[in-house]
Amino acid sequence: MHLEDLQTPCLVLDRRILERNLARMSERMHRLGVSLRPHLKTAKSAEVARMAVAGESGGITVSTLAEAEYFADHGFRDILVAASQPPQKLDRASALLDRGVDLALITDDTDAARAIAAHRGRFKVLIELDSGDRRAGVRAEGDVLLEIARILGDRFAGVMTHAGHSYGCRDIECVRQVAANERATVVSAAERLSSNGIACGGVSVGSTPTMTHADNLDGVTEARPGVYMFQDLFQAEIGSCSRDDIAVTVLASVIGRNELENRFLLDAGALALSKDRSTQATPHDAGYGEVWDTECKPAYGDCRIERAYQEHGVAVSDSPIDFRRIAVGTKVRVAPNHACITAAAYDRYYVVDGGTEIIAEWDRVNGW
Amino acid sequence: MHLEDLQTPCLVLDRRILERNLARMSERMHRLGVSLRPHLKTAKSAEVARMAVAGESGGITVSTLAEAEYFADHGFRDILVAASQPPQKLDRASALLDRGVDLALITDDTDAARAIAAHRGRFKVLIELDSGDRRAGVRAEGDVLLEIARILGDRFAGVMTHAGHSYGCRDIECVRQVAANERATVVSAAERLSSNGIACGGVSVGSTPTMTHADNLDGVTEARPGVYMFQDLFQAEIGSCSRDDIAVTVLASVIGRNELENRFLLDAGALALSKDRSTQATPHDAGYGEVWDTECKPAYGDCRIERAYQEHGVAVSDSPIDFRRIAVGTKVRVAPNHACITAAAYDRYYVVDGGTEIIAEWDRVNGW
Repeated sequence: MHLEDLQTPCLVLDRRILERNLARMSERMHRLGVSLRPHLKTAKSAEVARMAVAGESGGITVSTLAEAEYFADHGFRDILVAASQPPQKLDRASALLDRGVDLALITDDTDAARAIAAHRGRFKVLIELDSGDRRAGVRAEGDVLLEIARILGDRFAGVMTHAGHSYGCRDIECVRQVAANERATVVSAAERLSSNGIACGGVSVGSTPTMTHADNLDGVTEARPGVYMFQDLFQAEIGSCSRDDIAVTVLASVIGRNELENRFLLDAGALALSKDRSTQATPHDAGYGEVWDTECKPAYGDCRIERAYQEHGVAVSDSPIDFRRIAVGTKVRVAPNHACITAAAYDRYYVVDGGTEIIAEWDRVNGW
Repeated sequence: MHLEDLQTPCLVLDRRILERNLARMSERMHRLGVSLRPHLKTAKSAEVARMAVAGESGGITVSTLAEAEYFADHGFRDILVAASQPPQKLDRASALLDRGVDLALITDDTDAARAIAAHRGRFKVLIELDSGDRRAGVRAEGDVLLEIARILGDRFAGVMTHAGHSYGCRDIECVRQVAANERATVVSAAERLSSNGIACGGVSVGSTPTMTHADNLDGVTEARPGVYMFQDLFQAEIGSCSRDDIAVTVLASVIGRNELENRFLLDAGALALSKDRSTQATPHDAGYGEVWDTECKPAYGDCRIERAYQEHGVAVSDSPIDFRRIAVGTKVRVAPNHACITAAAYDRYYVVDGGTEIIAEWDRVNGW
């Protein structure tokens, strides 16, 4: 099987690039003395997870209970659900404990902590801290941190944060500063707990930009980056990787041409690419994705998807497109703005190994 | 079963509102003398399709071959695929002909028309016209229209257009003008074909805004609106409906609160809501969706999702949020910006009938 034989749109994963991305992050985390607990929210694949934990402790991070259940089905036994869950989901989560999974939850709320403490399921719980993202998390210096730890009692297992605001950086110095704050937040929270007689087992951080550029993780026990496995145009734009490191692309077919207006039409639109526009705020706005040829070369100039309708993507370029290379049926690969969001439209990967031959099909878990 | 019993996030469909939306469009199309061929790209559900074709000829419109196959499996026999397909998919499409489906394709390209004409599958084919959207379609006054019709020979079955640029309107007068141009484009193309000795069977138009406001469809044979079934915040903003007409919402749970910063966190983020930001360009920017209570009342002021992370939605309001009504675990319903894109994340609808009790579960088809 070859890329040319596939029905479009579909998701293509390059194992060679994936392996290189995984090795780079593993080496970096070892050098900084922290354990890597890869976040599988991007890949959502047991095959990828097995590669990502090779040489690590085997623990993984997920973002939904559906992912936790899928990875448990595939033999994973040390799982952190790194998004707060409503109390109504504790029964479902505790079914994983009953199956022998060492399941950790997170919380930043006293009521949620009381619900967890009162539940029969003996979860491990990390307290989420806000290191500047203003999404979730308590303050490292506030009273709520200590209050939640006391409510959790012997279920309290550590502190964690996610420096999502590193995505707002546009240079590496900014990312390094965010990484330093991320570390300082969890380490100072752990020290406060310790000085109040509460032992803090895990001290967990993670985002791909901060883990790519942090130069000191002293006091941190584990890191949870995720998108580093696949990378994407946005990560390339903010300096986490180069375009050559993007492992996942959408295979699409040309379904129309308009030479007069220097554009062509793909059968990959908003559902196939997502409506993520994260590169809009970066130096090279890629629209809804960059259009490469099947060998991942930018063979059509600076071609990008300017408009995304439900099933149509309008490809344009600032320079004249060579329409001798664009016929109806021509296949192209579209590099995604944000791999996590684009990949979620697909139930499988068609895996290549640096070329255009399909060497495997790997499944994915979606939904909740 | 009740909304409170569901795992979040999930998709809720109100049958009472759906029926009202369907009846309104059917009546309107009958009054204007055209046949309604509802577009199922939004609903992607056999249950919804059966309701939508009640009292009509039974023909439907779809956007992918996966939809065509799904609806064929559910007994539909008159299907128009209203997005051009690459030649590599003709074998797959012709398998539907072999199953007795009256399948129509569209094209705007001479090479694609040649591939269809040379294929063993005896497809009906409509020629796509550009009525101003600049997405796809030939010009009504150009030579290519006649050339494609001649290539198609006896497979040529009519002309069609989609006035997607009606989404750019911000008042009803603008939509009426787009609708008039949409009609004029296909009718003039049909007349040109006819005066060149080529009989034009179908004259097909359609978009929810234009079909909601068109006051004359003389010469048109069928209409293909789709999102009118569910409606959404964007359609409400551009005058296709009111907020009371929105039939589909995402049920979500509160997973965190921040009273100090007047925001709370939902377990519905970019994957559950989509990253569609179509209301950004309208008078009331709803962020990634409006937050209503479980009875669809805007009980939290002008509460909306300001930031959408992969699995987190940050709900904010310009006025103080009543946190006595917001606990971890509180369920809310989020009205979508764009129903077609949001619904695509889900494999089923939990159906209510004006209340909060679940009266049915209906499946959906996704993917390609």
